[in-house]
This record gives sequence, structure tokens and C-alpha cells, in this order.
Amino acid sequence: MPFHSHLLANGLQIIGETSPSARSAALGFFVRTGARDETPEECGVTHFLEHMVFKGTPRRTALDVNRDFDRIGADYNAFTSEENTVFHAAVLPEYLPQAVDILADILRPSLRDDDFDMEKKVIIEEIGMYEDQPMWSAYDRAKRLYFAEHKLGNSILGTPGSITALKRDQMHVYFQRRYVAPNIIVAAAGHFDWPRFVELIEKHCGHWQNGAIGRDGISEARGSDRFEVMTKDKVMQEHVFLISPGPTADSPLRYAADLLGMAVGDDSGSRLYWALIDPGLADSADCSFHEYEGAGAFYTSFSCQPEQAEEDLELVVDVLRDVQDNGISAEELNQARSKVLSRVVRGSERPKGRLMALGMNWIYQHAYRTVDDELRAFESVTLPDIRQVLDRYPIDQMTTLALGPLARLNGPKA
Amino acid sequence: MPFHSHLLANGLQIIGETSPSARSAALGFFVRTGARDETPEECGVTHFLEHMVFKGTPRRTALDVNRDFDRIGADYNAFTSEENTVFHAAVLPEYLPQAVDILADILRPSLRDDDFDMEKKVIIEEIGMYEDQPMWSAYDRAKRLYFAEHKLGNSILGTPGSITALKRDQMHVYFQRRYVAPNIIVAAAGHFDWPRFVELIEKHCGHWQNGAIGRDGISEARGSDRFEVMTKDKVMQEHVFLISPGPTADSPLRYAADLLGMAVGDDSGSRLYWALIDPGLADSADCSFHEYEGAGAFYTSFSCQPEQAEEDLELVVDVLRDVQDNGISAEELNQARSKVLSRVVRGSERPKGRLMALGMNWIYQHAYRTVDDELRAFESVTLPDIRQVLDRYPIDQMTTLALGPLARLNGPKA
Repeated sequence: MPFHSHLLANGLQIIGETSPSARSAALGFFVRTGARDETPEECGVTHFLEHMVFKGTPRRTALDVNRDFDRIGADYNAFTSEENTVFHAAVLPEYLPQAVDILADILRPSLRDDDFDMEKKVIIEEIGMYEDQPMWSAYDRAKRLYFAEHKLGNSILGTPGSITALKRDQMHVYFQRRYVAPNIIVAAAGHFDWPRFVELIEKHCGHWQNGAIGRDGISEARGSDRFEVMTKDKVMQEHVFLISPGPTADSPLRYAADLLGMAVGDDSGSRLYWALIDPGLADSADCSFHEYEGAGAFYTSFSCQPEQAEEDLELVVDVLRDVQDNGISAEELNQARSKVLSRVVRGSERPKGRLMALGMNWIYQHAYRTVDDELRAFESVTLPDIRQVLDRYPIDQMTTLALGPLARLNGPKA
Repeated sequence: MPFHSHLLANGLQIIGETSPSARSAALGFFVRTGARDETPEECGVTHFLEHMVFKGTPRRTALDVNRDFDRIGADYNAFTSEENTVFHAAVLPEYLPQAVDILADILRPSLRDDDFDMEKKVIIEEIGMYEDQPMWSAYDRAKRLYFAEHKLGNSILGTPGSITALKRDQMHVYFQRRYVAPNIIVAAAGHFDWPRFVELIEKHCGHWQNGAIGRDGISEARGSDRFEVMTKDKVMQEHVFLISPGPTADSPLRYAADLLGMAVGDDSGSRLYWALIDPGLADSADCSFHEYEGAGAFYTSFSCQPEQAEEDLELVVDVLRDVQDNGISAEELNQARSKVLSRVVRGSERPKGRLMALGMNWIYQHAYRTVDDELRAFESVTLPDIRQVLDRYPIDQMTTLALGPLARLNGPKA
């Protein structure tokens, strides 16, 4: 059995999957905190804090952090989502102790005032950069529209206003509340020695503070069929983002939902591909399933010449309505399944891919799942399962947001 | 021994590395033809032909090609360089026969007139898209300037003029000259059965035409220290591209050259990183070693605010001169080595990574090299090896091309 787990006295959970045929090791700290865990005054603090983690500790300056990762040739990075903040590194097996040392150290950051003020500018620039990506802006706004007052609609980056107003001590309070040991999972995958790994984590993280964890408002969030047009003159193409409901992250229907999203809107050979991309009616078109704690959603989007937007929107809605009424065919299900199985297997061949699966499965299913467990779950999805997803989560009941040069856009006919 | 090779009667070379612990298989057709193998009238034909390969055969329309790859969940793609055109796919082991069937079929394309005329527009749009990427334009022009009349300076995409003028029959003539069996290597890596793979290739490719192969002008190409400024008003930042000579692809000095490039200009912790990126003087700055048949080069580039360009160029030239005069330190060599070793190992964990290494090593070294062979080669590089690279290929003797809003830019002081 290549899976191991161990709970430290302070509540820190350690998990690992050893794979002797791997030639490297990946490790990650999964902090169960994201944009949905922020108060309105803290808007954007999770992502800002992710940046600050790399700015140093009592033992290391920001330069030292860079240099120490570089010395061991680490491939390292971090990301922030609605629900998680993940710090990860892939290294040769002999450098795992150093990688643990660096990651564990930076996860107790100094949050120095100078660094805080400097990084504020970087974050505000990053927000500006994302604002220049129309589809990202459409996504951010569509989520707010769909989730309405639910905290899953919170913006991950925040706004220039919220970031400017944020104070160092607010970040520190947030850190103390959310970065407590029981709210963090440390995982490793690939070629490494489990008992030694546990020892290292115990040594570096055993003193981290215990604390209360949890999350507000995890009741199931369902959106409505709102429609909004945001006019942006500087944008060339019209970008349309649609959100429909889907199963939650712990639902047994999530595998069927994944396959359904792929059949509807994968980047090749899907319904949307044949309706919009192949005939040259849109630059991009896709649909995929996204899962959260207490919520799930299908994100459908396309971009095209403004004068083409109304026809394209009709076509997209026709696709979604047809799928809602008639489901998908056995051949479509099989094709989506082939693609997913291939992606799962290829993704599992690298320690980094296994690390992410390991961490996310622990967070959302509180369970260890082998690659074969995942494959079997996708293999066993039937057309009636797809029907069940559609019956419980109508894919044609969507919130629609259009962003681009158009001043108005007619919604689809009933 | 996991390596296998077999030569078909028509000259087609088959090679493979089996890895029972892998869960997928990758295969590729490496056609030893690229931009440098084009006559002036054929400029851009190699890349255009790569596109046409996906447009169908007597047995398959373009739609069928898409659909057939999708049915088996293949991760497939192709690329064209100065010297090679590579078609590859990664699949689950049970789909290898279908993947061979599709790839072998499309490599004998129909080149239908309608598809040819249609794809011409796509290629011209693609050229326009690349023209909008200033650093790519700078690279394309710097290469022409450095290699001068040598065919390694040929543009991979061609120009709107050369593509417009190209006729279907010219492409067919080029295809018949360059896509002959002895000019192609078929490789596989990962989880697959070697005897069965050879059978499949024999069945699908055994009838491919034999023919003469070879390449003109492979004498070592060395550039000069030219300096040119191209003014482009629409570009916001100044983009500067420098090319210095380096060892050829079959030189034993290539490993030292790789490490030298990384110490000078990797994207973190390198000389250029500390000189330009860390102090915020440039948006991007890097240096890396590139190898060809009969040539090699260090490509150094940076982009910055126009008013900063002159100071940055001085700083970059100072770095290159200092490296030329004093070499790099033992610590810099070790740090670059850690990064390269880590990348080689992590890259080798996926069949696709091994496939590329396998094909390229066969093309350039006519040899099979294990991951451990590669690691040992990097491990054994010493500071005197770095010195030897610099003595034979002075890194501070460069061709410089600046592209951006500046009307003039002073070259570095002697």
C-alpha cells in the first residue's frame, strides 16, 4: 500500500503516496482558505498573503527564498482559488529535506511593513493586467452575478480599492485565523521515504499553532437566470460567460458532470466545437464543470466578433437546451470518457500531478483515491447518470454575462 | 535493456524505449526537414506542410482526423523548427494501434487544392499574429542578421508574400523530396510492446518511398558582430535580441554550453536576473543555448521601457564581457547544474518527455542515451569545460538587433 497518513498533535494532517518508480518528489502545503473565507473588508487578502509568503521570514529575506529554491533546482509555485491556497515544489529526492525546510519556513512569514507596501503595488498591477483579459473579467463578474450574495462570488484578486485599503495587521489577523495547523494538509508524492518525511514535518511544523477551523455559509448555492451586458469600448471581441448549476464537490454525480461538461464543450470534437469553432463563428468556445464545497457549476463561455454575438448566443443556448432535453449520445459519452481517462492517466505520471489529486481528494472527499479508483469512477458513468445530473441541475438555466463593445445584446428567445 | 531499434527495408528508422512502470505511451514521427531545407521560392513551405498534414488523406477528411484522434483521447500536436518537423501523440497503451494508424495515414497527405487555398489564409493570419509579438519578430530578424546568407537564418513561417506565391505543386515536390522514408524516424516511449509496434509501423509505413536524403550547407556557421535598430512605432517596449556563437549539436561541449546559458540567463537567480529583473530594470531578460547541425548559438534577449534600453544594453554587455573574461563561479555552475538535473529528471517522468529526448538524440548524436547518461554528462562538466566553450565561442561577440519605438540606440562602448 503506497498511501500513508499521519496526524500531528497540533492538528496538522500529513499524507503521502510513495512511488518507487518515480525519479523526483513533489510536496505541497494545502491551506484550506480562499476568497470565500474573506470578510468584505478583507477582499483580496488571501491572494495578497500568498504573495507575502514568498517575501521572507525571520530566517530568510525574499532574496534568500529565491536563492534557496534555486540552489536545489526546485520547480516551485503557488496558487489561490475560491477555497484553497496551495504552495508546492518538485525536487530531486535528495533535496526533499531542504524543500521542506524552505516551504515550512516561508509558511510562517514575517509580513514586514516594507515588503507589504511594496507588494501592494505588485498586486494592484496584477489586477490591472487581469482587467486587460476580457474573458477573465467576464468570469469574475459572471460569478458575482450568479452567486449573488453567496461568498463563492467573492473576487480572488480583490479590487485596487480593497487592496489599497488593506492594512498589514488585517492580513496578520487573517493569517492567524486561517493558517492554523488543523486547516493545513501537507502532502508528498513520488520518490521519498515516508517515515523520514513525517520526521521532517514534525520537526519544522510541530510547533505551529492549533486553532478552530471551519467555513461559513456552505449551504448549497444555486444561481438564477440573470442576464447582463457590460459595455467596454476598448475590448475588440464580445466575451460571453454563462453559468449553470452543477453537483457539489462531494457528490457522487461529479464524475458524470465532468464527462457532461467535456461532451458539451471540450476544445476539440465537442458540441460547442462543432457548432461554433469548426464553422469559424467564434474564436473560442468551451464548457467545463467546476466543483466547490456546497456548490458546483458549469462554466460555458465564448468570444467572437461583436456582430456575431447574438447568433452565437442563440447557438450556444440551443446546444444547452438540446442537451437538457435529449441528453448526449452513447458515442459522445464514450469519446468524453476516452479523453478524461487519458488525461487522468497522463496527469498521474508525474509526482506533481499525483500531489494535486492527493491533496484535493483529501480536502473534498476526506479520502485517499488511487489512480485506478478515479479511472473506475469515470468508467462506470452511464447515460442515466448524465440524465440525473441534468434533472437535478438544469444546464439551460443559466446566468449570462456579456462583456465587450456591444451596448446591448438580445437574450435568447424562450 | 529497454532500448530497441529496427530499420525497415525502405530506410525508415524505428526506435523505442519501453518503460513498464509508465501508464501511457507516446509516439512521434520525426521528419528531418525544416526551414533550412527550403529554397528561397519555398520559403515557409515546411511549416505550411505541417498544417496540411492534418487536412486529410484519401481515407480521411480533416474532420475525420480530428474525430479519430478524439475518439482515442489522444493528446496530439506537431511543430516545425529550423531543422525538424515533428508529429506526436500520447495515448493509453490500448490505443497505440489506432494512434499509429492515424499518424501514419496523415503523413501521406492528399494536399487537396481546396484545403491548400483555405489553409493559406490560416497561415497568413498566423504570420500576422506572430508579427504582433515583438520579441518573436526580433528573434526572426536577429537570426537573419546573424546567420546572413546561411540557410539557418531562414524564416520558419515565411512571409505573407512567400506564402501567397506558393503553389500546391511546389509543396508536393517538397514533400516528395523531404518526406521520404530514410529521412524519417519513428519513435515510441512508455508502456508498449516493441515487437507489436514494429509490426504496426511495417504494416502502415513499409510501402513509403525510399529516396536520397541529406542537407545542404552544414559547414559550421558563425556570425559577426552586427548591430541594427528596427523602429516600430506600434510597439510599446524596446525588445533587444543578441546572438553569440556556440558549439554544434554533436559537440561534446554542448552540456557545458547548456549550463553556461543557464548561469548567465535563466529566469531566476542568474546573472541577468540579478542585473536586470531583480532591480526592476527590465520586464524580461534571458539567455539560453541553442544547437543545430553544424552550428550553435547563445540567444540573449531583454525587453524594457524604451528610455531604459541603452542602460540595459550596457548592463547586458557588461555581464557577457565579465563572463567572457572571468567565467562563472563554482557556485553558479553548481546552481545551474541542480536546475538542469532537476529538469532532465522531471521531464523524463512522462513518456512524451522521453519521446522527445529519444528522437532528438537519435537525430543529432545517432545514439541512444538513457536519462542517467544525460545526468552523468551534466554532472561531469567542470569550470575548465566552461572556459573551453568561452575560448572557442566568445559569448561577447554578438549580433544585436533592437526592435521597438526607438529611432536609434547607441551600441555598447568598447
